[in-house]
Amino acid sequence: MAENTALDADVAARLKRDADGLVAAIVQQHDTGEVLMLGWMDDEALHRTLTTGRVTFWSRSRQEYWRKGDTSGHAQFVKSVALDCDGDALLVRADQVGAACHTGTRTCFEAGGDLDAAVGERPAGGAA
Amino acid sequence: MAENTALDADVAARLKRDADGLVAAIVQQHDTGEVLMLGWMDDEALHRTLTTGRVTFWSRSRQEYWRKGDTSGHAQFVKSVALDCDGDALLVRADQVGAACHTGTRTCFEAGGDLDAAVGERPAGGAA
Repeated sequence: MAENTALDADVAARLKRDADGLVAAIVQQHDTGEVLMLGWMDDEALHRTLTTGRVTFWSRSRQEYWRKGDTSGHAQFVKSVALDCDGDALLVRADQVGAACHTGTRTCFEAGGDLDAAVGERPAGGAA
Repeated sequence: MAENTALDADVAARLKRDADGLVAAIVQQHDTGEVLMLGWMDDEALHRTLTTGRVTFWSRSRQEYWRKGDTSGHAQFVKSVALDCDGDALLVRADQVGAACHTGTRTCFEAGGDLDAAVGERPAGGAA
């Protein structure tokens, strides 16, 4: 993780980082709404994501910055980034080239697969 | 966090938990595709989510199980749950009653707000 970063101080002040200095970043295809993957960002990865038009993560397994697509060609072009109410999660809307998942599937959740949950239904006549 | 849980052993074996025994759970409105919030689940919270039809988290701030909506009325009825390729994130598709966010907004990302990212564009003629 970088010791120094040019991340905007007002944004940095709003982040609630985990013990490793990271926040979770959900990546969603901007036009279809597909949830593609979850990655992790430190302050510098967020700075790069906010300023370069390309989604950049901190790779926990490789311990290095990871600009999505540099190896695979499967880049993510940034459309918007929003922070959540308590500062520990980001929603990145992006245009995903090809497969988001390193396994070759469009999303990482196809790769992992469905867990066969019991379905719940809101009570009839309940609040919207 | 519970010492014992009835979570299916095959599912449990696929989870890659953080130092606190948790995986990230993205909640998405099943029909509109809105990303509503990010919460955290331990094995028992996931078990309850998979078997009861109601989304249940582990609250890191309160250190207790949190069945969404029990206090607020803003329940999440489960439609499906998928695990990602490396086992550290869940995508929960649900039917959200009312506001997902404790601030009263529909999603937690409206509450936190847009970070004014520079927009990126895929090169013309590039791969889909």
